[in-house]
Amino acid sequence: MAPALELLEQPIENLRTKSKPFICNGVSLHDGLVLASAAKHQRVMNVFRAFIADVCQQFGEGHAGSPMGMAAIGIALYKYVMKYSPRNCDYFNRDRLVLSNGHACLWQYTFMHLVGVKSMTLDQLKSYHSANLVSLCPGHPEIENEGIEVTTGPLGQGLANAVGLAMATKNLAATYNKPGHEVVNNMTWCMVGDACLQEGVGLEALSLAGHWKLNNLCVIFDNNSVTCDGSADVANTEDINMKMRATGFNVVNVYNGDTDVAAVTNALLDARSSDKPTFLNIRTVIGFGATKAGTADIHGAALGVEEVATLKRSFCLDPDNHFYIPQDVYDFFHDMPDRGEAHEADWQATVAEYRAEYPIQAGEFALRVAGKMPEGWSKYIPSKEDHPTVSTASRKSAGVVTNALAGNINSFLVGTADLTPSCNVAYKNKVDFQSPDLRTSCGLDGDYSGRYIHYGIREHAMCAITNGLSAFNRGTFIPMTSTYFVFHLYAAAAIRMAALQGLQQIHIATHDSIGVGENGPTHQPIAVAALWRAMPNLLYIRPCDAEEVAGAYIAAIQATSTPTVISLSRQGLTQYPQHSSREGTLKGGYVFTEADSDDFDVTLISVGSEMVYAMKTRDLLLKNYGIHARVLSFPCTRLFEMQTREYKQSVLKARANKPAVAIEAYPSNGWERYADASVSMNSFGKSLPSKETYEHFGFEPKRIAAKVKDLVDEVRRDGIGILRGDFREFNEGPRIGFEH
Amino acid sequence: MAPALELLEQPIENLRTKSKPFICNGVSLHDGLVLASAAKHQRVMNVFRAFIADVCQQFGEGHAGSPMGMAAIGIALYKYVMKYSPRNCDYFNRDRLVLSNGHACLWQYTFMHLVGVKSMTLDQLKSYHSANLVSLCPGHPEIENEGIEVTTGPLGQGLANAVGLAMATKNLAATYNKPGHEVVNNMTWCMVGDACLQEGVGLEALSLAGHWKLNNLCVIFDNNSVTCDGSADVANTEDINMKMRATGFNVVNVYNGDTDVAAVTNALLDARSSDKPTFLNIRTVIGFGATKAGTADIHGAALGVEEVATLKRSFCLDPDNHFYIPQDVYDFFHDMPDRGEAHEADWQATVAEYRAEYPIQAGEFALRVAGKMPEGWSKYIPSKEDHPTVSTASRKSAGVVTNALAGNINSFLVGTADLTPSCNVAYKNKVDFQSPDLRTSCGLDGDYSGRYIHYGIREHAMCAITNGLSAFNRGTFIPMTSTYFVFHLYAAAAIRMAALQGLQQIHIATHDSIGVGENGPTHQPIAVAALWRAMPNLLYIRPCDAEEVAGAYIAAIQATSTPTVISLSRQGLTQYPQHSSREGTLKGGYVFTEADSDDFDVTLISVGSEMVYAMKTRDLLLKNYGIHARVLSFPCTRLFEMQTREYKQSVLKARANKPAVAIEAYPSNGWERYADASVSMNSFGKSLPSKETYEHFGFEPKRIAAKVKDLVDEVRRDGIGILRGDFREFNEGPRIGFEH
Repeated sequence: MAPALELLEQPIENLRTKSKPFICNGVSLHDGLVLASAAKHQRVMNVFRAFIADVCQQFGEGHAGSPMGMAAIGIALYKYVMKYSPRNCDYFNRDRLVLSNGHACLWQYTFMHLVGVKSMTLDQLKSYHSANLVSLCPGHPEIENEGIEVTTGPLGQGLANAVGLAMATKNLAATYNKPGHEVVNNMTWCMVGDACLQEGVGLEALSLAGHWKLNNLCVIFDNNSVTCDGSADVANTEDINMKMRATGFNVVNVYNGDTDVAAVTNALLDARSSDKPTFLNIRTVIGFGATKAGTADIHGAALGVEEVATLKRSFCLDPDNHFYIPQDVYDFFHDMPDRGEAHEADWQATVAEYRAEYPIQAGEFALRVAGKMPEGWSKYIPSKEDHPTVSTASRKSAGVVTNALAGNINSFLVGTADLTPSCNVAYKNKVDFQSPDLRTSCGLDGDYSGRYIHYGIREHAMCAITNGLSAFNRGTFIPMTSTYFVFHLYAAAAIRMAALQGLQQIHIATHDSIGVGENGPTHQPIAVAALWRAMPNLLYIRPCDAEEVAGAYIAAIQATSTPTVISLSRQGLTQYPQHSSREGTLKGGYVFTEADSDDFDVTLISVGSEMVYAMKTRDLLLKNYGIHARVLSFPCTRLFEMQTREYKQSVLKARANKPAVAIEAYPSNGWERYADASVSMNSFGKSLPSKETYEHFGFEPKRIAAKVKDLVDEVRRDGIGILRGDFREFNEGPRIGFEH
Repeated sequence: MAPALELLEQPIENLRTKSKPFICNGVSLHDGLVLASAAKHQRVMNVFRAFIADVCQQFGEGHAGSPMGMAAIGIALYKYVMKYSPRNCDYFNRDRLVLSNGHACLWQYTFMHLVGVKSMTLDQLKSYHSANLVSLCPGHPEIENEGIEVTTGPLGQGLANAVGLAMATKNLAATYNKPGHEVVNNMTWCMVGDACLQEGVGLEALSLAGHWKLNNLCVIFDNNSVTCDGSADVANTEDINMKMRATGFNVVNVYNGDTDVAAVTNALLDARSSDKPTFLNIRTVIGFGATKAGTADIHGAALGVEEVATLKRSFCLDPDNHFYIPQDVYDFFHDMPDRGEAHEADWQATVAEYRAEYPIQAGEFALRVAGKMPEGWSKYIPSKEDHPTVSTASRKSAGVVTNALAGNINSFLVGTADLTPSCNVAYKNKVDFQSPDLRTSCGLDGDYSGRYIHYGIREHAMCAITNGLSAFNRGTFIPMTSTYFVFHLYAAAAIRMAALQGLQQIHIATHDSIGVGENGPTHQPIAVAALWRAMPNLLYIRPCDAEEVAGAYIAAIQATSTPTVISLSRQGLTQYPQHSSREGTLKGGYVFTEADSDDFDVTLISVGSEMVYAMKTRDLLLKNYGIHARVLSFPCTRLFEMQTREYKQSVLKARANKPAVAIEAYPSNGWERYADASVSMNSFGKSLPSKETYEHFGFEPKRIAAKVKDLVDEVRRDGIGILRGDFREFNEGPRIGFEH
């Protein structure tokens, strides 16, 4: 149970297997730093593992197995390899560590405590799984807490985030570094378990990391061969090393990852100077030291009182001593805060020299470090006079804004999931983000300073990598993604993580309605908007014309702690220069046009590409029936709800007791807050040309006007009260089943 | 452009490279069948490619490139290799063909026409991209149309579906086949492009296919090296063959996939007798024959009038002859309908012999073929008296039902994304679905007759594979999945495809609220229910106790063309034997308890694990304020909306002009239809113990009662009209931003 390795203390350098350049990816081995003895490592690991067991035993739950298994990896990273500063966890050029197997968070929390991160007190560690409202030790790592780079837990996400973090470094380095002045050169270390290598989002991201040759990324596989259901081979028997080599990684094995800190350290140091991303396959035993070690039983549970005591005895520790961290273990890590400050001081000195030699670049770099956009970004938003007046697809209107912003401001990284020809996000003179070695068949090459990203057909990784870009340092990047709106369902788990973490980013979602047309129901989104409108801390904006598109971009740029989805049409949209406004868009909902009479009869609520049906219905209502309709535009329900009650009432005029009808080619869910009836979709779409698709589903002004007239008549006759609790669907209502 | 291969006619058998068993995976090579000459193949391909160009040119759009590139593959499959029957596309033991690159559908439609599928007329082919409402040629293949196995289009889905189809065969074969009686032995062929091999869902599914050794699956890679953004190497440079070998596939290369029908045929035949799933890497040229062949320009566009003419000339065809299919090309395929009938007759004979020898098994098999459940399934649903009366988590109540159903009825295939210990779906005496060769470290082995499926940590593939299981033959399987509710966001694109295709299946979604507790906000779902409630043709049912759980299963089994999500708690729930009812659950919403007085003051609407807050609030309202509250249970808004207006009004009693308050720990979106106010969630959750999490977010009966009292007072004072257009959030309303 407690192997006694007798490795003597020796300089780290001697352990390295190959001769590699001394400085690479920001490596800064301190001369004279020596590796402690194996016996010392053993002692630290014993204490660490017993401590983990104690914390989980406290409330009889939590994840003990992986943290215990990863003890040696933790020592190698935190004591010998990783460049970080416990007194300033956020310093810009630190190495990033992502715990993609986020359930193992106690591992990270405990090492943070040991290396001297002040906020991470012993009491905080004990608050894991407690009812403490201000715990820094939630059940999965959370970005708002000191020393945590990204919130992880949903598996595979962290791995993709790490790819984004490594890209961020590459892009900044290629943009700002000069010979002899490496102002950015950090590594990204990513811990993964079996799950992250099974999840599609992880696999997609790995393919990209290999393609981009991100040699500043090291994926550390805690290969304990156990998942919740049993041994990992219950669901996975592939040759992971061969797969990772095929994916473009340098693969390094460590066979005794439970105890051999030297071997792990050596492998990690090698990763720093690899020409490819590195995949460290480290064999460990989950719950190392416990009787149930190596089994699924120890994954997500406490060990039990007896078992904890047995464990401690086998580690030569007093079973009655709980949460025990002796001074010699603290001493082992005592130099970390000072070494961290030295790292930071080195970087500050580098930046100062850079500033002296390259003042202009250093000025922009300082702004990026501060997380600020250059002033005057608003000049790139087209003014009202610049808009087209002819019918224009909102994806095209958005393309104009993206072009201006991304073409001029280095903060914007613009990506696409292989829909460059459709999403209109490719800006003039774009340079692709690519390994400078790449030579493609079609001649589309690039380099790491490039800010146009071909993600391939990988929507989920695109969005999860984007979270890494956003999280590198708040405000340094405003990444953009682009795909068809319906494919947001591929990426939903990642976009949710952006909202949860308060990451600013812009998601360009085109082809956002049944107006997609011929590609048919698989490509026509129906329910996606309902998800985004319900998602906390997310702006879903669906502009109806070029002016509202401009408003959407302003809202997205101003929302510095929130992701924004801009929902855009494939098909041409009527422009409403007399009615649409960016100011209204920023309020989420506004009066598009009042009725021709002060005494209106009905309010029509519409949004996005369906605005034309509201406006045409309004005209027909007056012409055919003498009914006076006002029209509201509602590009963003979230922004509207954030307005004052007075403003909301002034827009809705609900107390006038006139009916309101929402017109949108999505389900009515949510519109019931503002409307009494809807023209909406309760089925999937159909493969027809755009106009015919709308007609097929009842989006025809003549038909809508007739329905609205009936409703107005009914209210005139019976009073508004009859609509209470009796929401009307003008199209066929919800149903289930399938027509063969 | 038109290489003239001079391969002579020769028996297919001679082409096979290795000696393999003659009968394997249902191979039934007809003796004496010979391969046509290369010149003949060339002629057929020329006509086919020109036809595709014509159809896309008709409306100036559509996907021409891939169908043209895949001409040789189509001939090999449809003429020589695939077992199918044009006169009865649905016969049970046919080979399944999935076009995972669904945009290439014109390829499939055109071959269906050529081989004699009667509904696929020339006029139908011309309706591609037209405004024809009854077109059988939508922009992507749709399952409701003859000859289409699954609806494809969202990339990667079809590949995972194909894995499910191959599993279905394996499971049925292992369950029913007897020595000398192979009643099920079909192959599954799956066409993929670059995208399907980049998408995570495809990668997850491939890992499983390799793990399960599905040697009846052949993945045919149309390797044309082009995607929308340019050459595929813009976003992908991995070694796909090495990767597929590492994943457990037999890899076969074909280097001249544009013209060498013989080589493709040979490779496909080899796949039939492989010991592993096969990956055919076939090099093709997108848009073969056109000037723009081999470029992204030809992916999703028509060629242009001039270019079509040039193409035809190069193929020795008359440029003025449109939609031209000469008799000799029809003649080439003329034998397919008869050969198909022979296949079917063979199978019918096999089944007849089987029936004679194994009447009991044949009886059950016939029921499965007919897509029927055994009669009397309802006896496995616990009756009201069987339920526990003590607090019980609904995941446990559901586990009881799953156990009874899956333990007794072979139609149920129960899967989990590595959450066996949490989702309570492992039934007694389960056998795992595994390759019989597998020997796992933990001893959890199985065989192909097993019906418990370890999907690994692959939610998306789990659900997409499940679609394949459902689509194998309607009703033959009722597959189940299980995972945490929040991880439905990983699988949303696949579950949507189930709804779109009307596939019956049951998704067990546990840990469905902030009551998850300590695992924190990453694991606490907030907005997912909004997606499923808005999704067409999907039942999202959130039962509040064991009786409603029983109702949920009945609804799911009765919904034969609809997927059902059953949303379940992690934590214990109070049981309400006096109030809950399965009949009410089947109506979606019902009166849980009326007020103690006929003249009620307020209606409380609740659902799932929040029911306890409504019931306790009701008691407090009476006790503390003398307010009479009725309580509605609303497990499924979709089912409720399908009831008569009279029923709905009798439940809601909206015209009584008393306020209604919805209580659910999700956003209020959608409840506005029935309520005037809500206790709901507009933020993400928090890592705290379950009870404390609820309290932290205002789910406290005392607090809720006080808020309800204020609302009741306000309505008494000012009338119900004041609530119109002024929905009240009793918790903090929607906002954006992030607290650091």
